[in-house]
Amino acid sequence: MQITPLKELQDRVRNLQRRLQEESLDGALITQKMDLYYFAGSMQNGFLFVPAGQAPLYMVRRNYQRALKESGWEKVLPLKNWGQLSEYLQDYLQKSPKNIGLELDILPVNQYRQLLQIFPGVKFVDISTMIREIRMIKSEYELSCFRQADRIAADIYRKIPGLLEVGKSEIELAAEIETLYRKAGHQGILRMRGFNMEMLFGHAYFGENGDMSTFLDSCTGGEGVTTACPQGSGWRKLNPHEPVGLDYGSVYGGYVLDHTRVFSLGSLPPELEEAYAVALDIQEEVISRAAPGVLCGELYRLALEIATDRGLGDFFMGYKDRKVKFIGHGLGLDLDEFPLLSQVSKHVLQPGMVFALEPKFIFPGKGMLGLENVWHVTEKGVEKITSMPDDLVVVPLK
Amino acid sequence: MQITPLKELQDRVRNLQRRLQEESLDGALITQKMDLYYFAGSMQNGFLFVPAGQAPLYMVRRNYQRALKESGWEKVLPLKNWGQLSEYLQDYLQKSPKNIGLELDILPVNQYRQLLQIFPGVKFVDISTMIREIRMIKSEYELSCFRQADRIAADIYRKIPGLLEVGKSEIELAAEIETLYRKAGHQGILRMRGFNMEMLFGHAYFGENGDMSTFLDSCTGGEGVTTACPQGSGWRKLNPHEPVGLDYGSVYGGYVLDHTRVFSLGSLPPELEEAYAVALDIQEEVISRAAPGVLCGELYRLALEIATDRGLGDFFMGYKDRKVKFIGHGLGLDLDEFPLLSQVSKHVLQPGMVFALEPKFIFPGKGMLGLENVWHVTEKGVEKITSMPDDLVVVPLK
Repeated sequence: MQITPLKELQDRVRNLQRRLQEESLDGALITQKMDLYYFAGSMQNGFLFVPAGQAPLYMVRRNYQRALKESGWEKVLPLKNWGQLSEYLQDYLQKSPKNIGLELDILPVNQYRQLLQIFPGVKFVDISTMIREIRMIKSEYELSCFRQADRIAADIYRKIPGLLEVGKSEIELAAEIETLYRKAGHQGILRMRGFNMEMLFGHAYFGENGDMSTFLDSCTGGEGVTTACPQGSGWRKLNPHEPVGLDYGSVYGGYVLDHTRVFSLGSLPPELEEAYAVALDIQEEVISRAAPGVLCGELYRLALEIATDRGLGDFFMGYKDRKVKFIGHGLGLDLDEFPLLSQVSKHVLQPGMVFALEPKFIFPGKGMLGLENVWHVTEKGVEKITSMPDDLVVVPLK
Repeated sequence: MQITPLKELQDRVRNLQRRLQEESLDGALITQKMDLYYFAGSMQNGFLFVPAGQAPLYMVRRNYQRALKESGWEKVLPLKNWGQLSEYLQDYLQKSPKNIGLELDILPVNQYRQLLQIFPGVKFVDISTMIREIRMIKSEYELSCFRQADRIAADIYRKIPGLLEVGKSEIELAAEIETLYRKAGHQGILRMRGFNMEMLFGHAYFGENGDMSTFLDSCTGGEGVTTACPQGSGWRKLNPHEPVGLDYGSVYGGYVLDHTRVFSLGSLPPELEEAYAVALDIQEEVISRAAPGVLCGELYRLALEIATDRGLGDFFMGYKDRKVKFIGHGLGLDLDEFPLLSQVSKHVLQPGMVFALEPKFIFPGKGMLGLENVWHVTEKGVEKITSMPDDLVVVPLK
């Protein structure tokens, strides 16, 4: 079982403490599972208290024994109930904290009210953006997790052509791909920070189902098998000469490598092949422009401009008014991390960022053509993490 | 694609409106995905406003087209931004609402604050318990979904003995079971309402891993493949003569049928077989006592009493101080619904409730012995929904 190295946890907490000091906060009380995993190396049920100037305190309701083994931190205490938080903090700080940062983007109102009662007189401040900005810059350890996720994805990618058959349903194909991922150690779920969001292993969609978006902020989504989970694969069967869109998240150590490729059984109509070529060109242009200091919104505008120049503006990132206004997003323990490569994004590329770039064209009644790769921002430019070939894969019809 | 019948939605909303009127609320603004699915038949990104005395209004940010097809309600409006909520409600009610119910058990603080700004002067009231109590009583339609989930589970159950092999890892077995479920149309995820909770298809664990609980409120959990997702199957390989615990959620139309069985390759040590027999006895006794009007806490105490009388008190629902203090829970679109069959539960059985009863014994270093079935409370007593045999399944060693 891989354990987050203590050095890694120390670096992360030091970054947080610097920000807490800048904002004159006494500490941060962290409980969202992926934030907890990021700063504690463990996502048991509890809180990590990070004082602005002392080592963190991991207070765990359950499973305490497991938390002891998972987390590199020395101070792990059993938490019988939330009420104990107050005495633990008081004892540890040797004073009552005055202001504490919380993840108010995800903390439910009732739990917040409970904290207000437990800590009378304490001022709570939203530090969700602070945390997301810290998590935005990846370490060498995190990059190694992405690279491991890539090795798994590249291996599975090579098996996809052998799985395609006329008459096979989306859900059958999805089941087969998910099994390959599970046997390679996939954790079985992808995480999104956004309220009400959820994600399976990814989406497999055939033909016109590539034009089926859902509650997610994405131009694709898939039909799903039920209205109770309206995303991913459905019951539609594969025909020859139509695009098979595979948008999956390979995961290692919690880190999600989001990648999309298009396959077909037999050649595609020339206009769809041409759209794929334009997506490749957009990727090339955007990546050649991407470097530290570049505004993410500029990359979006560049991509849209190329799509429009090539006569495909109507189809880019969704058909006409169904468009989403972004071409990529940060990745990490969550699928929806900073930076956002959107029209209105204020994020500027910085060394250490990891993002997915996904130029896609949606043709109503026909499907999705495009691809998605994962990139790491270096001091000089960007490096590709995804190693599978970029080409559209046309599998000969038997 | 199954669509929740309009009659069903009307009954559900009528129940909610009755409660809103009792509490003198002008309406409820529902946004949590499973509540939305329950009352709107659709879980797109948006809000269902249920006025105390008019038909509901489904306001959808995305995907609007999909919401139109999924929901039986007539009034489905596109929502450009949350700010529009205020004008939509004002127009529809022909007055400003004074007090509105919200799901404050799950609504994040920042989104709540946004609603406070959008609706100045409106008093928001927590209606999460009200909604959970309404969802607690199941309709004939909901029972039909559970029964369909049961047919799928029973079919897969028959295939399990053929999948067991000495040396196979938990994760390999899990991958195979998940594939069977997916090909039968499983949505690929189970839902939990609780903050920070998450669930895969279920848990497969061998031998001593049956004594590995995690952040979930459960006496089992499994090792998982990574500390980033510390539940479910891990890398441990199967030996003969040890318990294989399979705790899975079969899902149809969003409804989760939670069920547990134990298998082994070759016979188990007599003390473990005996514990399984005691679990069966506990089930029999508890079920013979269960009927409308019975306090859930009583059923817990009865179960614990039998376990203790049979000399297995230390092992019941967790070893010694690692115990959880419940023997079952309600089921529906979420895994963690009302009623709770816990020591302190104030819930009283009522016709229409559906619950899982899961008497389990945990032997450190050896594993979990017990079972879990799903029951429906009728006017007279309870009826079993799970149809697979209750026996411990010993597969002969080849």
